[in-house]
Amino acid sequence: MMHFTNFENKEIADQLIQKALFYKADPRKDLSKGLGKRVGCIFLNPSLRTRASTQIAAQNLGMESIVLNMDKEGWALEMQDGAVMNKGTVEHIKDAAAVLGTYFDVLAIRAFPSLSNKQEDTEDFVFNQFVKYSGKPVISLESAIRHPLQSLADMITIQENQIAGKSPKIVLTWAPHIKAIPHAVANSFAEWAIGCGHDLTIAHPEGYELDVEFTKGAKIEYDQKTALEGADFVYVKNWSGFNEYGKILSTDDSWMLTEKHFEFANNAKVMHCLPVRRNVELSDEILDGPRSLIQQQAANRIYAAQAVLSKIIE
Amino acid sequence: MMHFTNFENKEIADQLIQKALFYKADPRKDLSKGLGKRVGCIFLNPSLRTRASTQIAAQNLGMESIVLNMDKEGWALEMQDGAVMNKGTVEHIKDAAAVLGTYFDVLAIRAFPSLSNKQEDTEDFVFNQFVKYSGKPVISLESAIRHPLQSLADMITIQENQIAGKSPKIVLTWAPHIKAIPHAVANSFAEWAIGCGHDLTIAHPEGYELDVEFTKGAKIEYDQKTALEGADFVYVKNWSGFNEYGKILSTDDSWMLTEKHFEFANNAKVMHCLPVRRNVELSDEILDGPRSLIQQQAANRIYAAQAVLSKIIE
Amino acid sequence: MMHFTNFENKEIADQLIQKALFYKADPRKDLSKGLGKRVGCIFLNPSLRTRASTQIAAQNLGMESIVLNMDKEGWALEMQDGAVMNKGTVEHIKDAAAVLGTYFDVLAIRAFPSLSNKQEDTEDFVFNQFVKYSGKPVISLESAIRHPLQSLADMITIQENQIAGKSPKIVLTWAPHIKAIPHAVANSFAEWAIGCGHDLTIAHPEGYELDVEFTKGAKIEYDQKTALEGADFVYVKNWSGFNEYGKILSTDDSWMLTEKHFEFANNAKVMHCLPVRRNVELSDEILDGPRSLIQQQAANRIYAAQAVLSKIIE
Repeated sequence: MMHFTNFENKEIADQLIQKALFYKADPRKDLSKGLGKRVGCIFLNPSLRTRASTQIAAQNLGMESIVLNMDKEGWALEMQDGAVMNKGTVEHIKDAAAVLGTYFDVLAIRAFPSLSNKQEDTEDFVFNQFVKYSGKPVISLESAIRHPLQSLADMITIQENQIAGKSPKIVLTWAPHIKAIPHAVANSFAEWAIGCGHDLTIAHPEGYELDVEFTKGAKIEYDQKTALEGADFVYVKNWSGFNEYGKILSTDDSWMLTEKHFEFANNAKVMHCLPVRRNVELSDEILDGPRSLIQQQAANRIYAAQAVLSKIIE
Repeated sequence: MMHFTNFENKEIADQLIQKALFYKADPRKDLSKGLGKRVGCIFLNPSLRTRASTQIAAQNLGMESIVLNMDKEGWALEMQDGAVMNKGTVEHIKDAAAVLGTYFDVLAIRAFPSLSNKQEDTEDFVFNQFVKYSGKPVISLESAIRHPLQSLADMITIQENQIAGKSPKIVLTWAPHIKAIPHAVANSFAEWAIGCGHDLTIAHPEGYELDVEFTKGAKIEYDQKTALEGADFVYVKNWSGFNEYGKILSTDDSWMLTEKHFEFANNAKVMHCLPVRRNVELSDEILDGPRSLIQQQAANRIYAAQAVLSKIIE
Repeated sequence: MMHFTNFENKEIADQLIQKALFYKADPRKDLSKGLGKRVGCIFLNPSLRTRASTQIAAQNLGMESIVLNMDKEGWALEMQDGAVMNKGTVEHIKDAAAVLGTYFDVLAIRAFPSLSNKQEDTEDFVFNQFVKYSGKPVISLESAIRHPLQSLADMITIQENQIAGKSPKIVLTWAPHIKAIPHAVANSFAEWAIGCGHDLTIAHPEGYELDVEFTKGAKIEYDQKTALEGADFVYVKNWSGFNEYGKILSTDDSWMLTEKHFEFANNAKVMHCLPVRRNVELSDEILDGPRSLIQQQAANRIYAAQAVLSKIIE
């Protein structure tokens, strides 16, 4: 594992889950492992959990972290190779990434999609330019199409909450939202859940099909009620259209999960990556009730990042 | 002392003052006390002294600190319970505060007032939502109505400069300003000065009465000259109207302190929390002259924060 | 050496170069030297390399660093002594710098020129107000007229790449740009190259003469081709007019360096401080080819800063 950008295989995923649980039990167990190592956290977009949990994970390993909010503290980066830079961009990714690669042992990068240029987003162009030019291990802090640290935290949370000996039914359900939202969390959750061998159903209104690259192996269901039947874990997430790229195709609020939706999934736990639009994606009663695993997921972000950093600096 | 948000009692205040002076004499005396502890500093508003002094205080105790400028690096938080979040707010304080509570041992929060919604400000609504939902000890880095770390630093400064055996006359005087300014520093200074048993006179033009919640026990004086007579410490501060909430009622520049104002308070020391509008609130001659304690107050911010952190992690 | 703001003399420059190379060979050699020391990095303008390299340099010495982006996290500072502060500025540099001086052992400050007020810029007014009022050693992270950490890194890079026994011909050549750019890097490079005893030629279109304060001792050449003949090191940089202050006088793209320009300087290495406008200042073929030292220069920024910090805390 040179970089941490996507699901590689079940063996590595299982190792990371075990390592994360090991750190959760004793966060400072490996406090000397990262001494003298330095992670640069580069944000092209805002963050709360991701930035804090990554810095804490680094601290728990004795690593130093430095955060660069390129969108606010830096300047606009040129991403196109060969560009004549006589417009708004100040520095080419080629130069900036190489410098950052020189300064840090590991880079962690957040780069959201445009939601307008489908081809560039689908190729994870911006993120991959960083990877290409930095020459160092890169950890994704959410790219245009994936959010693997979130998905690793989600897999840890499922492992903590599943009933021994029973293969859980996992449902990823689309939820309404007022803004056009990226596909990264949904893509990655599908990729990891399927890759880890889970039984995954994806429910959404027609037209909201995700990139099949991430969903093959999952059951697609257009009727939310049918999908939820017998569910053990329900992952709630909005995303915008993929085929009609970046479009809001529906705001049907019957898809907002409330307690009523769990008539035939009495023991289901509910997951969300946060931030969540309360009473738009999910009702207060769910988020504040016993089904909710959202705080546990958020807490596991630390140990997911710690397991990944630990493996990468080995 | 679970949180540090207001003046609790004289015994705790005296302990904190002594502890702060202890750290001032030897800042790194307790360098191992905070090892493995982590403070999250959450800013909804800008800061210079408060952020730096709190981070330094943490470092002096061996603690790790992480700063989140929510107003710039994060996103808009929803504060209203039960809100249907289909507008501009991205995450509910309930979720964000709980996550931050999971990530940190102590939270330190700055949340200024709106100066438009008097009821919410007076209830310290935003700050208290953080306290309510974080589940961890919270230190106020200035809330809508209080700035207790500033006041503790002020009490330390008074203790350092008072003449043994003499109970000092302390005057808090309103000063002109071009903007509508919060009441937090004035409220807290009154609360702490009175709580610590000091003789406090508050001088301001009519109409600028502060919330009596904070000023009972102080003498209110509308004539600045009379108030200043025989003063040992003069604390200068602007605030906007409380009764006519958030309004600028006067810009009478005769209230700007100059050397002339000290005709009958020859030995008075002058205090200000900074930032100060020079030659609007206070003249250069005062700020740059021997009466000024402003730099000493600012330096004491470190030890005030260090004493509070030290007590909270005990 | 109390401050690090300009070229002092060849002896100190040589010491710093040797110290930097010593740290480059073993960055953590002096990890306990800075324990308990704290550097405050104050930015009035954005930064990537400078901020990261300075923080890394501090970490390598065991020092703590705190970054304050005054332009974004703080508020507008008043620079004029005696100002009546009834306008947009919130705090006087006199007060802010003194507080920062109290909080930190060393201050490192970035303050770009206005490019409109020639007198203030030429006096390095803003930067010098910090120096004047902070009362602590100050390191320039680029002021209105100098960028000495960059120049020190450049001298290190030249030393690493020069052929033993041969005095290199160094050319500083103006390059086109679409924006009005400060003179600091060009000034400092000239100051250091000349001060270190190098043979320096400065090439630019007529009208682009730099302040003679920095260039005396260099050969000025208006014909780029003639200047480049036999060059060993070619430093590429745009700057705006100095005589016609802050003006863009030419965008003549024949001055953009391409491989063709090296017909009579076959072994020349190319340097640039970054960020570089690709295919405006310099062609991709140069930047990505074997002549380019730009990444080595950027890497040396760490050791330049480390050598300076090390000397200042002695």
